[in-house]
Amino acid sequence: MIGILTGLVACFIDIVVENLAGLKYRVVKDNIDKFTAKGGLSFSLLLWATLNASVVMVGSLIVAFIEPVAAGSGIPQIKCYLNGVKIPHVVRLKTLVIKVCGVILSVVGGLAVGKEGPMIHSGSVIAAGISQGRSTSLKRDFKIFEYFRRDTEKRDFVSAGAAAGVSAAFGAPVGGVLFSLEEGASFWNQFLTWRIFFASMISTFTLNSVLSVYHGNAWDLSSPGLINFGRFDSEKMGYTIQEIPIFIFMGVVGGILGALFNALNYWLTMFRIRYIHRPCLQVVEAMLVAAVTATVGFVMIYCSRDCQPIQGSSVAYPLQLFCADGEYNSMATAFFNTPEKSVVNLFHDPPGSYNPMTLGMFTLMYFFLACWTYGLTVSAGVFIPSLLIGAAWGRLFGISLSYLTKGSIWADPGKYALMGAAAQLGGIVRMTLSLTVIMMEATGNVTYGFPIMLVLMTAKIVGDYFVEGLYDMHIQLQSVPFLHWEAPVTSHSLTAREVMSTPVTCLRRIERVGTVVDILSDTSSNHNGFPVVESNPDTTQVFVERANLNLVQRRLKLKDFRDAYPRFPPIQSIHVSQDERECMIDLSEFMNPSPYTVPQEASLPRVFKLFRALGLRHLVVVDNRNEVVGMVTRKDLARYRLGKEGLEELSLAQT
Amino acid sequence: MIGILTGLVACFIDIVVENLAGLKYRVVKDNIDKFTAKGGLSFSLLLWATLNASVVMVGSLIVAFIEPVAAGSGIPQIKCYLNGVKIPHVVRLKTLVIKVCGVILSVVGGLAVGKEGPMIHSGSVIAAGISQGRSTSLKRDFKIFEYFRRDTEKRDFVSAGAAAGVSAAFGAPVGGVLFSLEEGASFWNQFLTWRIFFASMISTFTLNSVLSVYHGNAWDLSSPGLINFGRFDSEKMGYTIQEIPIFIFMGVVGGILGALFNALNYWLTMFRIRYIHRPCLQVVEAMLVAAVTATVGFVMIYCSRDCQPIQGSSVAYPLQLFCADGEYNSMATAFFNTPEKSVVNLFHDPPGSYNPMTLGMFTLMYFFLACWTYGLTVSAGVFIPSLLIGAAWGRLFGISLSYLTKGSIWADPGKYALMGAAAQLGGIVRMTLSLTVIMMEATGNVTYGFPIMLVLMTAKIVGDYFVEGLYDMHIQLQSVPFLHWEAPVTSHSLTAREVMSTPVTCLRRIERVGTVVDILSDTSSNHNGFPVVESNPDTTQVFVERANLNLVQRRLKLKDFRDAYPRFPPIQSIHVSQDERECMIDLSEFMNPSPYTVPQEASLPRVFKLFRALGLRHLVVVDNRNEVVGMVTRKDLARYRLGKEGLEELSLAQT
Repeated sequence: MIGILTGLVACFIDIVVENLAGLKYRVVKDNIDKFTAKGGLSFSLLLWATLNASVVMVGSLIVAFIEPVAAGSGIPQIKCYLNGVKIPHVVRLKTLVIKVCGVILSVVGGLAVGKEGPMIHSGSVIAAGISQGRSTSLKRDFKIFEYFRRDTEKRDFVSAGAAAGVSAAFGAPVGGVLFSLEEGASFWNQFLTWRIFFASMISTFTLNSVLSVYHGNAWDLSSPGLINFGRFDSEKMGYTIQEIPIFIFMGVVGGILGALFNALNYWLTMFRIRYIHRPCLQVVEAMLVAAVTATVGFVMIYCSRDCQPIQGSSVAYPLQLFCADGEYNSMATAFFNTPEKSVVNLFHDPPGSYNPMTLGMFTLMYFFLACWTYGLTVSAGVFIPSLLIGAAWGRLFGISLSYLTKGSIWADPGKYALMGAAAQLGGIVRMTLSLTVIMMEATGNVTYGFPIMLVLMTAKIVGDYFVEGLYDMHIQLQSVPFLHWEAPVTSHSLTAREVMSTPVTCLRRIERVGTVVDILSDTSSNHNGFPVVESNPDTTQVFVERANLNLVQRRLKLKDFRDAYPRFPPIQSIHVSQDERECMIDLSEFMNPSPYTVPQEASLPRVFKLFRALGLRHLVVVDNRNEVVGMVTRKDLARYRLGKEGLEELSLAQT
Repeated sequence: MIGILTGLVACFIDIVVENLAGLKYRVVKDNIDKFTAKGGLSFSLLLWATLNASVVMVGSLIVAFIEPVAAGSGIPQIKCYLNGVKIPHVVRLKTLVIKVCGVILSVVGGLAVGKEGPMIHSGSVIAAGISQGRSTSLKRDFKIFEYFRRDTEKRDFVSAGAAAGVSAAFGAPVGGVLFSLEEGASFWNQFLTWRIFFASMISTFTLNSVLSVYHGNAWDLSSPGLINFGRFDSEKMGYTIQEIPIFIFMGVVGGILGALFNALNYWLTMFRIRYIHRPCLQVVEAMLVAAVTATVGFVMIYCSRDCQPIQGSSVAYPLQLFCADGEYNSMATAFFNTPEKSVVNLFHDPPGSYNPMTLGMFTLMYFFLACWTYGLTVSAGVFIPSLLIGAAWGRLFGISLSYLTKGSIWADPGKYALMGAAAQLGGIVRMTLSLTVIMMEATGNVTYGFPIMLVLMTAKIVGDYFVEGLYDMHIQLQSVPFLHWEAPVTSHSLTAREVMSTPVTCLRRIERVGTVVDILSDTSSNHNGFPVVESNPDTTQVFVERANLNLVQRRLKLKDFRDAYPRFPPIQSIHVSQDERECMIDLSEFMNPSPYTVPQEASLPRVFKLFRALGLRHLVVVDNRNEVVGMVTRKDLARYRLGKEGLEELSLAQT
């Protein structure tokens, strides 16, 4: 079901975007054609910019005012979710609807964005919804899959959804599985992985079937993903050992450009956090970017004198402009098109379709536009813009090589465009294994695996030398307690005693309801899970997650609480009368009778490993007599990070 | 280094096998050609059978008498090793040498075996050797990589080696990574996975470079693996939605045939364990199988009347036999060839190259031969024979379909041969995710991913209904304490108290050497790790792995023991004098100061998860006062298995 629904959502996005964008480009093209003849092209610019800005305005409005968490690609949010950090509303149905509409409007609005990143978020929401069998937005409970309502099961479902999303976006089922493992999983489980793989396969298969039928060639299954890099023929376009240093050099360039992109975006985000935090301002900024994008595109096309013969080319909306009859403006293929189509054109157009000046100017402009666009209050992905920037400079690089080597057969610009795209994307997002496989699957070519891996690895190493990856950077800017893969290397000297939160509020096994309510209401408490201890001298301790405890007349189960309060309301909103406060509650039913504990001498890396491997949220620290002395939470662990001057403590947001 | 060395070993095997097998087939062919003319073909049979039997005899002798652990494909052994079970000699250099020679001799000896499975073992041995930076077989210590000598690091290296082996065998780097994760890893680590992927890429790249140079087309990198399924052209050989039920049906057939194969092999293995345990008998059996294989092949070729025109076909050693001039015997392409080449021929020979009778007879005969061969005391893999059986009946199936549909364009026998091969292999080994990716990479075709996955999944589900997978079956026959992915589902009622070993022998922090030696010498002890407890009333407990403890005059480090006793000799072989026995030893240096513990009420699934996630070998069970009450070892957990009548306790071998 995850696979099918994710595939269908992807189809919906693709078909709507294609039609709306087609409509827009046809309108603008007719207008331009008309005014080219009789002068007054500024009207066309005005039309284009206004169209874009108004479409983006709607997209930005729904995101800013209805569901701000739907902004951006959603990948950082899903990373956090899979890491175990709770972000409110991130897997709600409302978020999905806004996300899907938002991404359609952003792409149609001509922003430098892709529709692929948001698919990951969409898949995750679908999966989470299925795991719960109910929707809080729709206020419906379908009474199915109640078994999957546990927190860990939901997280597994979300991994599967993310994988299905990648799979639908790029036609890359294996890449999707690896993405969800690379970004989310901590405990590797064969069965889980297999199920994720199945969901991914179904997702790309659904998309493929529906799009094939839509495009009228029902049985040939030729559209595995939202973006298809097209067929790279390995016999015609192999690579030789001599080219490997060239690929590594491209990786270095990609790493540097990626780091520059991230650094610029970092400053921009800091600026936005400080000055543009009101929704109205955010909408205005998005509109401004849309108008500027259209203007830059128009001016570039207008100033370009790069005319190419129209026959034999695969341009969807050829703009003649000032070219001779039977020719079109080649800058327009890059700017006057959806970014996905531009990428494919850069990969596959025959040598000589673009002149170097066009590509250089395009790279420069698009780089700044994409950087400005990422972080706007619209739903949008950064994958495709990155690929497009990289493909442009990669192709430029290939053309230069071809000049230098006097047109050698191996210096195919399309191949270098592919490597450039990989280098740029790797330099920005810093994924490696999953990205290699995604690129391999999207090109349908296994041969390029090795050079793509080399390029991505070089880009990552070079990029990491300067700044963090884009997603990690945004996660850190939001100060969430994100746990990395391993504890900082210099943290061996720290013990559980030093990192733990203390004092710990404990409950007894039989507790007065009033006490429980008071403890739960006390927001100054530094932890949300409370050990349940036995008060006799034979001390033991046991554990309960924060649950909404109420008076007990009959034997309540945990399920009763879940059904009564499906949205986990704050304790303050539940009225507990004075009589009820005097009742006693037996916590045995709600507590975990054998929680994981560590002795207080355990080192930080050991505690960290336990957290990561078991996906814990709280860990009780005990002394030699097995008495509770403290509690380690995610925040206690995420606080330590390896900075420039050794171990640093960070301040983290309250979540 | 792992990648390069594994790639080179694979090259070595490939080149030697190719030359020796070429030599053998040429000699036999000349002989057959000679005697076909003048009668007396029984001499040819005798020559062929004797050649095969003597080559196999050498291969079997070195395995049986020098290193029995090198027998078979080595995949079950590596699975156990990665699971945490220690098998003596499994990653020794001597094993590698025997393995490599053994596999060459088995393949050249004409057995129904492949050279791919053993590559996984070879890669693992190489990796383990590198991690240690020394070889106990060579008695050399290269004093490098001392950091990696820890047990967990060595296991990570072995994962990488296994991945590099798969990668070299099938030209499938991603498949290799997934194989090593599917079969071995428990804790997913991004960095580790990335390194494994790098090793895999290097491995296939090395093989590719060397073999390309060897074959004289140095720069085109066209041999990514030991077996290359050849190019499946997706445009010519796509699939349509209507074919999916057919693929699923083939999966069912593969599952049933795989289960039959496993069941037959199970009985055969039981017979071997009971009656053929002396090395001489094992060698005789191997020779017998070799002779029978040659005889069956000869009789089949002799009786076959399936002549095909010689031009346009890709047969390496065309046997004319009783065919007209310019024609060859088509049964001989299947039997008179290395199995790898036969598989590729079945995939790619044009429709009409084989008649159905030939294929049917071949499938039947080869099925029983392969089943008899697996488990012999020779180094050999089961991958290729499985693929070959499957390709034969798959092609037969495709031909039947073609008849039924009156030669439809989509009923290409090569495509069905591929699906049949996948189904048969899946039915025997029951791998899913990794096998899908391996097949995808080996065919160089992403399009077939979905049908291959369907076929493999169906084969696994159907096969699991009858018996276990071949590797799991052999692991269980060896009674090793192998931990599966999850605890048996009905084990929730069991607690740590019920499964633990008790009583536990404890040590004090400062202990008399004599006591330590006595405890270590006591073979009746049911655990090999000993908690170190403090004897004051403020009870705590800490932990030490079985180490060879000796008298302490100065402050000894753990490293001193490792260097003094690199091979971990049994304690009985170390002489400890009476004076030394009276010394005291401080165990603080050798113990783990904050071991993982569980309360005795913890459920079995919880304990199991801790073991799997953290890769533990011992877990101390404590009571409410934090006093040691028992110890859970791998064996305690592996003992419980879900049988036909609920939870069963198994008896496990002492390891």
